[in-house]
Amino acid sequence: MQTTEKEQEQVREERPIITLITDFGEGYYVAAMKGVILDICRSACLVDITHDIRSHDVLEGAFTLLCTYPYFPPHSVHIAVVDPGVGSERRGIIVATKDHYFVGPDNGVFSFVYNREPVTKVISIESQVYLRGTVSPTFHGRDAFSPVAAWLALGTPLEKFGEEIEDYSGATVLPVQKVEDDPTRIEGMVIHVDKFGNIITSISPETAAEQFGYSGSPKFFVKGQTITHSYSYYAEAAPGEIFALVGSSGYYEIAAHRSRASDILGVERGEKVQLELHTESSASSTT
Amino acid sequence: MQTTEKEQEQVREERPIITLITDFGEGYYVAAMKGVILDICRSACLVDITHDIRSHDVLEGAFTLLCTYPYFPPHSVHIAVVDPGVGSERRGIIVATKDHYFVGPDNGVFSFVYNREPVTKVISIESQVYLRGTVSPTFHGRDAFSPVAAWLALGTPLEKFGEEIEDYSGATVLPVQKVEDDPTRIEGMVIHVDKFGNIITSISPETAAEQFGYSGSPKFFVKGQTITHSYSYYAEAAPGEIFALVGSSGYYEIAAHRSRASDILGVERGEKVQLELHTESSASSTT
Amino acid sequence: MQTTEKEQEQVREERPIITLITDFGEGYYVAAMKGVILDICRSACLVDITHDIRSHDVLEGAFTLLCTYPYFPPHSVHIAVVDPGVGSERRGIIVATKDHYFVGPDNGVFSFVYNREPVTKVISIESQVYLRGTVSPTFHGRDAFSPVAAWLALGTPLEKFGEEIEDYSGATVLPVQKVEDDPTRIEGMVIHVDKFGNIITSISPETAAEQFGYSGSPKFFVKGQTITHSYSYYAEAAPGEIFALVGSSGYYEIAAHRSRASDILGVERGEKVQLELHTESSASSTT
Repeated sequence: MQTTEKEQEQVREERPIITLITDFGEGYYVAAMKGVILDICRSACLVDITHDIRSHDVLEGAFTLLCTYPYFPPHSVHIAVVDPGVGSERRGIIVATKDHYFVGPDNGVFSFVYNREPVTKVISIESQVYLRGTVSPTFHGRDAFSPVAAWLALGTPLEKFGEEIEDYSGATVLPVQKVEDDPTRIEGMVIHVDKFGNIITSISPETAAEQFGYSGSPKFFVKGQTITHSYSYYAEAAPGEIFALVGSSGYYEIAAHRSRASDILGVERGEKVQLELHTESSASSTT
Repeated sequence: MQTTEKEQEQVREERPIITLITDFGEGYYVAAMKGVILDICRSACLVDITHDIRSHDVLEGAFTLLCTYPYFPPHSVHIAVVDPGVGSERRGIIVATKDHYFVGPDNGVFSFVYNREPVTKVISIESQVYLRGTVSPTFHGRDAFSPVAAWLALGTPLEKFGEEIEDYSGATVLPVQKVEDDPTRIEGMVIHVDKFGNIITSISPETAAEQFGYSGSPKFFVKGQTITHSYSYYAEAAPGEIFALVGSSGYYEIAAHRSRASDILGVERGEKVQLELHTESSASSTT
Repeated sequence: MQTTEKEQEQVREERPIITLITDFGEGYYVAAMKGVILDICRSACLVDITHDIRSHDVLEGAFTLLCTYPYFPPHSVHIAVVDPGVGSERRGIIVATKDHYFVGPDNGVFSFVYNREPVTKVISIESQVYLRGTVSPTFHGRDAFSPVAAWLALGTPLEKFGEEIEDYSGATVLPVQKVEDDPTRIEGMVIHVDKFGNIITSISPETAAEQFGYSGSPKFFVKGQTITHSYSYYAEAAPGEIFALVGSSGYYEIAAHRSRASDILGVERGEKVQLELHTESSASSTT
């Protein structure tokens, strides 16, 4: 069943990818969005990223987008709806970068995209032509962002949706900063706890090194505990041992082999976490 | 990558939509259904509406179907399996309306469809030809409804599946009625609580006005609390304020801006909710 | 919209099925895998089996695969990633049977497949060509198994991925054994509790009869309770009555009509369950 390069290229044109991130939870809100999209662009390949973003947690939505969209092929359209201000003055926007389109509210949910790659154009969604006839003031995901994404996937030129804008919500970076009363440490936050209880922090080795001169091996402080061991994969640690590693998204994680680090340490999303800037390489470190 | 109208029309024929609503939860029951469907109709575009209907809650399944199927394109096939009587005498049916097909048990799960639009035909599924060779008495979702939906999506004529019937479970309406000892109010129920804690009621402004002569602005009574404020979108309210609004499905909701109204009021699905029929417009109302 | 046999055959070639079983939970790990797959094989039809396997529970992953893959069409590719040893010495493998391909770690997750049908070939994934440029030591699901599955779906010959091996983790069977101090009984375990609270056991009527000479009607012992009634479908029982039946996957289940047997009996996955080998047919049994 080998298919040729050319056939795959054709599929690419014929089957545009539309991904969805929302805080709507499982259920009929997301299904209605998919119905609207397929009614306009029947050939769309719909991919759910997640609908379990914490309600109204724009930062979590932005981080999840950052961890996923780069893996999708060029010309993918990414809808991100974490939108506590729906119905108010906040604008709906389309963000175009070299390889991707993003559709959602202008409330910071795309801020890590701006930080990661150059933005080609940001459009304020104004034309009523590409919205549903009646737009519910509480569900722009269904009545505005879904149809816009579908028309975009069909190849509608950007300028048809509205005016280019420059004053969109600017780039933000994941929270990492110097600790005020201790120049030997930087402080970030727990940005996500995954199903395994792994604690994903906002600190990457690159940020720590380039912006704060970090060197050595990771030594973390969280909830009064010190984590000095680090490994490159989970099974290197002893069962239950707590350690740091660079996770698959490029950020430091605090994990426990075959145990839930989050439960052992009592850590939830939002908790502060500190990293020592200069350590001597620890004997147990393999990173 | 602009595609023409004609190409999209072709995709429509080549890629029939089959949606799924069940109370099976996440896991291998639904996956087996999808395997069966794709084995018959490989080109199907499968869309999960939800599999988190409360176990055996036919009313919730029916309401979820009502809130989603109208958004899907013509010729979509909708499977709804909330089926406590599986294996017993209850029939399996296909319901055809002008634009949609529905496949599932004849137990009321399609009752809101009957109420919303004219039914073209209801078929009792009798032919064994379109079922799996061995039909498990506990899993008609996999062995009967999935293959029937797949053959239907491939264009199999309705009459091949069985006889037309007239005595199917009739139309029901969402529960809204006069309050017996208080002629100034009508009573409905909480039909759904969404992930945000918004309380969706069975009362729509249209039903209230047309059937009960409702006028004015919404004043709700639920769990001993009176809700007098109403807005048209969430962010209009003050944080934590409880208010009514017309939700995206057209029913009254009781919500709290950036808080969970269901937690604040202690309300779950099934709770009774009353609406005052004649109010003077409240100063804070914007609806 | 009737499509011909030939058209469906073409779709089969053009739209390879890739299914996914993981213990990653809902969220961005799975989404990244899908992005990687679609970037290589845009025409893939992706089907989530489940991502809610208990963390590191290889047996549950293997059982879920067994209950689902046989329903999918020939040439489907099944990714199963329950992989506590990721990054360590454990190999990644491709298993080919007559009709299916399986991709995942060589840790037993495919052991029920080996037991169910002849294996054509097992390949140790060695070629770097089909992996992502940088392979995260903690996420082979994204960087190794997803791209391998995608290339396989495109028709890449098996031998290109690596050497054939014979020493892969062998076939295992679901745990069923004689009870040591009671020759009249066999013992299995609770392999799954579904959303309805139905208790799925590791004992099938075939295994019991062929390997242990079981005859009669089912009489189960679990948590100090004896279950003597059996039916062929749920609605045959009285509401709340606890009984045994042969479930849709071919294994004995202990269920309660419109109630949660698991809650009533206080049973969780892993609990031991015993079956009496020789009973006189019970009056209430209909199986």
